[in-house]
Amino acid sequence: MVRLKGILESKMNKPQEVLEIFKKYTPIIDQEIMALLDSKSNLLLYDMMRYFFGFLNEDLSRANNYGGKRFRPGICLLISDFYNLEKKVIGAATAIEIFHNFTLIHDDIEDRDEIRRGRPTLWSKWGLAHGINTGDSQLILANTELVKNYKDEPVLFTKISEFLTDIYSGVAEGQYLDFTLAEKGLNDSFVCEDKYLEMIEKKSAILVAASAKVPGIIGDLGDDEQKLLWEYGLNLGFAYQLVDDIASIWGDQKNTGKVESGDIKEKKKTLPIIFLYNSLSGEEKIKLVDLYNSTADLNDEEVGLVKGLLDREGVESLVWKKIEEYLNRSQKAINSLSISSEQKEMLHKINSALIVKPSGVA
Amino acid sequence: MVRLKGILESKMNKPQEVLEIFKKYTPIIDQEIMALLDSKSNLLLYDMMRYFFGFLNEDLSRANNYGGKRFRPGICLLISDFYNLEKKVIGAATAIEIFHNFTLIHDDIEDRDEIRRGRPTLWSKWGLAHGINTGDSQLILANTELVKNYKDEPVLFTKISEFLTDIYSGVAEGQYLDFTLAEKGLNDSFVCEDKYLEMIEKKSAILVAASAKVPGIIGDLGDDEQKLLWEYGLNLGFAYQLVDDIASIWGDQKNTGKVESGDIKEKKKTLPIIFLYNSLSGEEKIKLVDLYNSTADLNDEEVGLVKGLLDREGVESLVWKKIEEYLNRSQKAINSLSISSEQKEMLHKINSALIVKPSGVA
Repeated sequence: MVRLKGILESKMNKPQEVLEIFKKYTPIIDQEIMALLDSKSNLLLYDMMRYFFGFLNEDLSRANNYGGKRFRPGICLLISDFYNLEKKVIGAATAIEIFHNFTLIHDDIEDRDEIRRGRPTLWSKWGLAHGINTGDSQLILANTELVKNYKDEPVLFTKISEFLTDIYSGVAEGQYLDFTLAEKGLNDSFVCEDKYLEMIEKKSAILVAASAKVPGIIGDLGDDEQKLLWEYGLNLGFAYQLVDDIASIWGDQKNTGKVESGDIKEKKKTLPIIFLYNSLSGEEKIKLVDLYNSTADLNDEEVGLVKGLLDREGVESLVWKKIEEYLNRSQKAINSLSISSEQKEMLHKINSALIVKPSGVA
Repeated sequence: MVRLKGILESKMNKPQEVLEIFKKYTPIIDQEIMALLDSKSNLLLYDMMRYFFGFLNEDLSRANNYGGKRFRPGICLLISDFYNLEKKVIGAATAIEIFHNFTLIHDDIEDRDEIRRGRPTLWSKWGLAHGINTGDSQLILANTELVKNYKDEPVLFTKISEFLTDIYSGVAEGQYLDFTLAEKGLNDSFVCEDKYLEMIEKKSAILVAASAKVPGIIGDLGDDEQKLLWEYGLNLGFAYQLVDDIASIWGDQKNTGKVESGDIKEKKKTLPIIFLYNSLSGEEKIKLVDLYNSTADLNDEEVGLVKGLLDREGVESLVWKKIEEYLNRSQKAINSLSISSEQKEMLHKINSALIVKPSGVA
């Protein structure tokens, strides 16, 4: 495991330095995933997974240029270090990362995305059938990873399985809600702040919360501590997703890697748009609904119109206010944890490093 | 549970009477699935599953016309009765049925099938994204069902989870092999009897084997008995799949519900075609390869040509010989089980009822 003391003493101030912490956990997780895949038969099925994880290049030669953050297992192992749980959490952290990547494999098909991190997505390279089946197989492997690591401790295995099965089930509900929001008209009563927040809670935030709580379950840290870990992760997850929504509207492509104003072009009904809908009235409201309920993507002029309205109504700062609320709740949970003040400081710094205004945002 | 003694005493002789046994277990499994779905949130996500299981009609009104056999949990509960395991096996039997139906939901997408059992498939009714995600959610629910039933017995829960996770992972490998056989040319060395049998073993036979073995695991029946249960189910599963392959070539639509000569039209490289390829030579072999490696479906004339060759080469009886080998192995395992002779007789009768020449076959 990574020696934290040295990291804590090195007085990180820049976001990039703070985020280096996660990178130090990446090899631990990657080795664990690789060992799991190597334990299976020698089939292209598993090479497709290796490709998606970034272990193989497009020609299936070995790759060294993986760009994934391993953000969730990073949180898991960092917290595990705080409570001196040593290697006990690695299996669960790895299962979460395997599950997370399975969701991306299927998400790419569902959204018909052909490129992820600059490379063809799995389905666009090997076709729809392999895309679906490889994702399924990987979802099953998330459980294989738990079996492998915890089967000799049945009580612990059962506890972790119950917890993560519930989380996974919630994530699938979040995905369902996401499709449903996309299908409904902007003026449908289903499309509202509460439903949107429920969707990102389930689709994104609970997996971050689970990453933070799993060490609490494995270390048997007590209900209060586990609840605080969950609160810390859940609210960080909310804030993280909302920053992503802002980046997909106001971020510039060079820094975010996202298509500029991409969420507006694709008429995604994210929180900024729901806020805008709520603040408009009369002709402008009707015009916005017409644009969002049409079948085609928005053209540049229409994107400009929506961005103009968002700016005039001060929507970005409304969303930032929301993000700060979540961040405050996350910080509050951190301050109540039974860890040292240096460790709290580290979690605060990580939160600040993760939740920054995307470059290009005013 | 169903009282078996009465059934055994009623001297069943017709296949249909024998198969009625499974129908008696259906309500037990269906109630368990319904209770699981009712324990989740009130979302269309779960109504899509209810529709696929046959509990709801197309307009989401309650249905009473379900046609699924519940063949796998039927075997599971029948064997469970033989060993007086009472209700302990219901959870695992239900998990297997939930998993099996998940594979069908995704299979329909992968094969682009729009109709199953006379109704629109899930994806063709609600779209690709819901089709994929509902399947994912249902795969997760198979584990929820295990958690619900066995979490208070962690040692048992761990044993069943380990066993079924391995089975599920094998089924995904079988699906992968199926796509790979479809992608390769008929003259590719990958397309051979061994690979085909490996494919149906993983894709189909091991889930039948698992259904037979699970009562052995739950009842802690000892390694030898568990091995015999596995052998019984595995070989029955092989035979069952090969009968299906025969029905898809020689069966008549009225009785099998399958498109006549459907597997030839779609150029599926099932065992009969592999046998035919092996027995032909010269121009005829080249012609067959050309037909099977072309991109379009075969027309009626071409289907007639292939059927003529299959008949001339006596391929059907070669496949029947293979089926009899599997059936013999299954019968041998049955005879070695530590159950009464009446119970053995019942399993023999079930095998004979399941493995019959499809109507229309000479």
